[in-house]
Amino acid sequence: MTPITKKIGVLGAGQLGRMLAIAGYPLGQKFGFLGTSHDEPSALLGQMYTDEVESLKDLVKFSDVMTYESENTSVEMVREIARSIPVYPGEKSLYYSQHRGREKGLFDELSIPCAPYQVVDSLENLTQAVDEIGLPAVLKTTTEGYDGKGQFVLKEKSQIDQAWKAIGGRELILEGFIDFSRELSIVAVRNADNEHVYYPLVQNVHHDGILRYTIAPARQISETVQTQAEAYMKALLDKLDHVGVLTLELFETVDGLVANEMAPRVHNSGHWTIEGALTSQFENHVRAITGLPLGDTSPRQPVAAMINIIGETGPVAEVLKMPNAFLHLYDKAERAGRKLGHINLVADSEDALYEQIKQLSAFLPAEDKSES
Amino acid sequence: MTPITKKIGVLGAGQLGRMLAIAGYPLGQKFGFLGTSHDEPSALLGQMYTDEVESLKDLVKFSDVMTYESENTSVEMVREIARSIPVYPGEKSLYYSQHRGREKGLFDELSIPCAPYQVVDSLENLTQAVDEIGLPAVLKTTTEGYDGKGQFVLKEKSQIDQAWKAIGGRELILEGFIDFSRELSIVAVRNADNEHVYYPLVQNVHHDGILRYTIAPARQISETVQTQAEAYMKALLDKLDHVGVLTLELFETVDGLVANEMAPRVHNSGHWTIEGALTSQFENHVRAITGLPLGDTSPRQPVAAMINIIGETGPVAEVLKMPNAFLHLYDKAERAGRKLGHINLVADSEDALYEQIKQLSAFLPAEDKSES
Repeated sequence: MTPITKKIGVLGAGQLGRMLAIAGYPLGQKFGFLGTSHDEPSALLGQMYTDEVESLKDLVKFSDVMTYESENTSVEMVREIARSIPVYPGEKSLYYSQHRGREKGLFDELSIPCAPYQVVDSLENLTQAVDEIGLPAVLKTTTEGYDGKGQFVLKEKSQIDQAWKAIGGRELILEGFIDFSRELSIVAVRNADNEHVYYPLVQNVHHDGILRYTIAPARQISETVQTQAEAYMKALLDKLDHVGVLTLELFETVDGLVANEMAPRVHNSGHWTIEGALTSQFENHVRAITGLPLGDTSPRQPVAAMINIIGETGPVAEVLKMPNAFLHLYDKAERAGRKLGHINLVADSEDALYEQIKQLSAFLPAEDKSES
Repeated sequence: MTPITKKIGVLGAGQLGRMLAIAGYPLGQKFGFLGTSHDEPSALLGQMYTDEVESLKDLVKFSDVMTYESENTSVEMVREIARSIPVYPGEKSLYYSQHRGREKGLFDELSIPCAPYQVVDSLENLTQAVDEIGLPAVLKTTTEGYDGKGQFVLKEKSQIDQAWKAIGGRELILEGFIDFSRELSIVAVRNADNEHVYYPLVQNVHHDGILRYTIAPARQISETVQTQAEAYMKALLDKLDHVGVLTLELFETVDGLVANEMAPRVHNSGHWTIEGALTSQFENHVRAITGLPLGDTSPRQPVAAMINIIGETGPVAEVLKMPNAFLHLYDKAERAGRKLGHINLVADSEDALYEQIKQLSAFLPAEDKSES
C-alpha cells in the first residue's frame, strides 16, 4: 500500500460504485462494497460483502471511510456506521435529499427558487392543495421514486381520485407545474477542508422519465446563470456540511433557474466528466471523501455529450469504431428500461458533436431518431 | 452480463494487469488474475487466483481468453493453456521476445536495423566476439533482465574477465555500442481481424537503467521516421501473427532508427496514453484480445508526458492540485528503485509541458532536477 491509500466502503454495488472504483484505484485507494449478489456491476472491483447478517459489520471493519450509492440509504444506518468511521456525505445531506418535502423546505430556507408545493397525506389534503397550487401540477411520493416512478401528472380536477388511487395511501407532495425551456443540472463537490469546485451546467433530455442524453456544457448559458447555479450549490454544500459530490437538477425558465431536486451523490448527468472533464465527478468524490485536494473541473474539449444505453446493449461495436466516443458498460443483463451503460462523446464544435450523436441514433428513443 | 462481455485471464497481478482491468471494465469485460498474494496491485480488481496448485487450472476455467504481463512467461505454459482457450499474444511473440538472440535474428530477417551482436556461452566465445564486434559494447543475458539488470558495459578488453564473472556462466549476448541521440519507442496493436494501429513515437529518458519519463509524441520526428517505425512494427506484427499490444524500443541515430528490443505487451513508455490518447494502450490491448475493433490512437492534446514514481510515493498531493496532471498509483509499498506509480501530463504546448515537468522535479532523479 502507498502511504496515501485509504479503504473506501460503498453501500451498494451498482454502476455508481463501479465507476467510483475505476476512478479511485489510480489514486491508490481500495474499495469494498455492500451488495446483494456477486453478479452486481461492482462485484469484481473490490472486496464484496453480500447481504448476510455480518456483511455490514465486516465492511465497516474493512473501511477507513464509507460512502453510498443512493439517497435512499437509511439515515439510521449511516448514523450507526458513523460511530465507527466517517460516512460521507453525512446524515444531514441524506435526511434532506431523501424527502421531497424537506428538500423543498431547505430550498425555501436558502432562497433557492423552486415550484410551489404542498405535502399531503389524504385525498382531502390533496383536493385542498390542488385548489391552492392550481393545475397542471405533479403529484409525487415524498420519498423514493426515481426515473419517473411514483409520479402522476394532474391536468384536471377530475383526475384527483385517480391520482390518489395510483400513488396515494402514503405521504405525497403536490408540486406546481413549472413552464421550463430546458432541464439542466449542476454537479458540485466539497471536501472537509471546505474546498468547493463546480462543473459547468449541463442540459439533460429525458424520455419516459429516464435520462437519455446530456449535453455538456449546456449550450448558451450566460456566465450570470452559471454563477447563480454555483451560488445555490455553495449555499447547499455549506448548509449541509456536505462532503463529496452533490447534484442539483434545475429547470431553466423565463424567470431564471428553478430547483427541481438534489442528489447527495455522483449523478447520471455527470457521467460525461469521465473523459469530458480534467477530473471526473467520480474521482472528485473519491478525493473529497478521502481528504485529498479537489481536482480541476474544466472541460477537456469545447463540447461533450453522454448518451445512456437503455434496455439493450445495442450496436456497441459501432461506438468502438468512432473516434472521440468512449464506451462505458456496467456489466448488467438486458432488461427494458434498465441503464446498461453510457457513451461519452467529446468534440471541438457543436456541429461535430451533433453529427456524432446522429451516428448513434440507434441508442436514442424513436422520437429523437426521427428528429435527426 | 452484457452480450459482449468476455472474461479475461491475466498471468500476473502487477500494475500492468491493474491498468488493463481499469481500462477493460468499461468495455464490459471481466478479469481474473494469477498472482502470488492478495496484496498485489491487481488483487482487488478481479477474481484472484493465488499460486496454489489448482490456481492456473481454475483461472483457465474462469477465462474466455488469456493474456500475460511479462515476456518471461513460460512458452510451455502458454502452449498448454492454448489447448483450452486462446492466449494472446501467442507463443510465437513470446518465443522471440524472451530471448535477445532470437529477437535480433528476427530483426535481421525482417531487415529491421539493429546493433551487431553475437550470442556467447563461454569466456572464449566472449573474447572472440569482442574482437569481432569491437568496443565499447554491451554484454547482456539472453533471457530475463529488465530495468538495466543483467547488463555490463564493456569499454576495454581488460574488463572481459570481470564482465563474465559478473553476469556470465550462462548464455549471454554481446551487442555493439550504438551511438544514439535519443531513445524512442513505439507501441502498436493488431487484432485477429488483422487491423493494425500505431501510436506516435515517444521519447524516453532512463536513469540507472530505469525509465524515468516519456515525452509523447517525441519532439521533431519527421513523418518519414514515424512511417519507418510503423513499417517495422507492421513487419513484426504480421510475422508473429501478433494479437495485442507490441512495443519496440528504438535508438535514434544519424543513420536512422535502430531497434533495441521489443516487448509483447503494454509498456511503461505507453502509459501516457491513458489520458494522452483517444484510446489507451490498455484499452486497445483488451479490444485486440477480445475481438473488438481497435480504437483511435491519436493524441488528445498536442503534447503529453509520463513521469514514473520510483521508490517513494512522494508529494502526490501536489500532483492532485495541478490541472492537466493525472495520478496513477499502483498500490505498492515503497522500496528503492520500485515503480510505484506514474504521473501523466497533457499540455497544449511544449513550453507548458516543460513548465509542468519542472513543477514535478521532486519525482525526477537529481541530475534532471539540476538541469531544470
